[in-house]
Amino acid sequence: MMLVDGIPANAVPATDRGLNYGDGLFETMRLHGGQVPLLARHLARLRAGCDRLQLAYPGDVAIGDDLARLAAAAPGEGLLRLVLTRGDGGRGYAPPADAQPRRIAARYPLPAAGSTTLAVGICKTRLGQSAALGGLKHLGRLEQVLAAAEVIAAGWDEGLMLDSDEHIVEGTRHNLFYVRDERLCTPPLDDCGVAGVMRGLILEVLAAQGRPGTEAPLRYHDRHEISEMFMCNAVAGVRSVSRLDGRELGAARFAAALRAPLAAAGVAWLA
Amino acid sequence: MMLVDGIPANAVPATDRGLNYGDGLFETMRLHGGQVPLLARHLARLRAGCDRLQLAYPGDVAIGDDLARLAAAAPGEGLLRLVLTRGDGGRGYAPPADAQPRRIAARYPLPAAGSTTLAVGICKTRLGQSAALGGLKHLGRLEQVLAAAEVIAAGWDEGLMLDSDEHIVEGTRHNLFYVRDERLCTPPLDDCGVAGVMRGLILEVLAAQGRPGTEAPLRYHDRHEISEMFMCNAVAGVRSVSRLDGRELGAARFAAALRAPLAAAGVAWLA
Repeated sequence: MMLVDGIPANAVPATDRGLNYGDGLFETMRLHGGQVPLLARHLARLRAGCDRLQLAYPGDVAIGDDLARLAAAAPGEGLLRLVLTRGDGGRGYAPPADAQPRRIAARYPLPAAGSTTLAVGICKTRLGQSAALGGLKHLGRLEQVLAAAEVIAAGWDEGLMLDSDEHIVEGTRHNLFYVRDERLCTPPLDDCGVAGVMRGLILEVLAAQGRPGTEAPLRYHDRHEISEMFMCNAVAGVRSVSRLDGRELGAARFAAALRAPLAAAGVAWLA
Repeated sequence: MMLVDGIPANAVPATDRGLNYGDGLFETMRLHGGQVPLLARHLARLRAGCDRLQLAYPGDVAIGDDLARLAAAAPGEGLLRLVLTRGDGGRGYAPPADAQPRRIAARYPLPAAGSTTLAVGICKTRLGQSAALGGLKHLGRLEQVLAAAEVIAAGWDEGLMLDSDEHIVEGTRHNLFYVRDERLCTPPLDDCGVAGVMRGLILEVLAAQGRPGTEAPLRYHDRHEISEMFMCNAVAGVRSVSRLDGRELGAARFAAALRAPLAAAGVAWLA
């Protein structure tokens, strides 16, 4: 089932700026027990992204109504995807002054669970660095498409993506946390990468526990100093990395310690 | 008038990967005298882009037929835009093994001519650098969208975009050539920017004249050493920059010398 501006539909005008220019944002949300447990965080991120792109935010009510209808359409687990574009105007990069954003909400089955831990390789495809887009979940995902093709060709569960300064930033569809010298860190996302909802929640949980996670760059050449790594997103939650670029990693102590507090914070499918 | 896979239509499925991931390429072509004078160059670039993205090229015949129908639909000048996406598959970055590309061909009026010379400023929005995407005219144009909004807000005719290493790379919708120490150069596009059809033709014309243009990086801090600049794309042709970041530039000698050979090479609207 799919809703375009709240109306059941499965097509959008070919003049949509999301299609023609990647001019828009999206959210991928876990549907659990008929609810979107992290809805408020998704909406807050979308609203912040709209502010950065000068894109009119459709409002919590309109979006919440779309999502509630998709959730009610069928029982069981699933995921909801919301695309917000700058609407029509297929010629010329400049945003029309009177742009009317378009929202496309769709429900999908959960992806296959796959292995509980991840064997992770290093993708050749790099992340372009641009402060204007850093952290945004925008529609231009071609780097991730190419990297995901590498992951499949190599037979990995997931791939790590580097920026042009040789820093490991994130996976193709997960953020990452790593442990080095007994400190739990996550790469900063100021000029590339997606500031994931689950990543944000984990940083809050850690801070509330009095052992804050630190944003710290991870150089590719320092990957051998990592004792633990886990990856996260709003659909899977937290998944430990068992194998990093061919090397077995040790016990997932930090990841295991997060399960109960994350479940308490709404990530009920991890309980 | 618009054709989707050769059929008159004005919508695409909301599951299209061009919309959801920017997973595709496009060409913007000048229609002149009922023809696309630079068609072979546009098709060659599109085919090369398909090779890089492992996207099935629809073939010169199918594309040529779309364009001929759009050209015949009305007399007069115009521009044709061809979008090629990886087709359907809205969930998951990895390209489906059986992806069926979708082509969307549309005809638009020429943009307003504007001033014959360009007053050009420097955009704050930077170009992300990624060897995987460098030179490609792919669908993820959000940096150009943001930069084009800057151009309008500032009242410039066009804006120059820098990469994160402080090099001036291109405009929001033009490539650029610059003259420094009496040498005509254009920035390299290995890790960002669009390898424009008109830029390629100009480099060929220069080489045929025995005075090759050189690919040479242009540092932002060296902009005061430029004596002439012109910008180019397949719709406008060549346009001289009269004002660069507040400074008047001198006579457009190099640009003027290109008009006759470019017209002979098919850019008839410059004649």
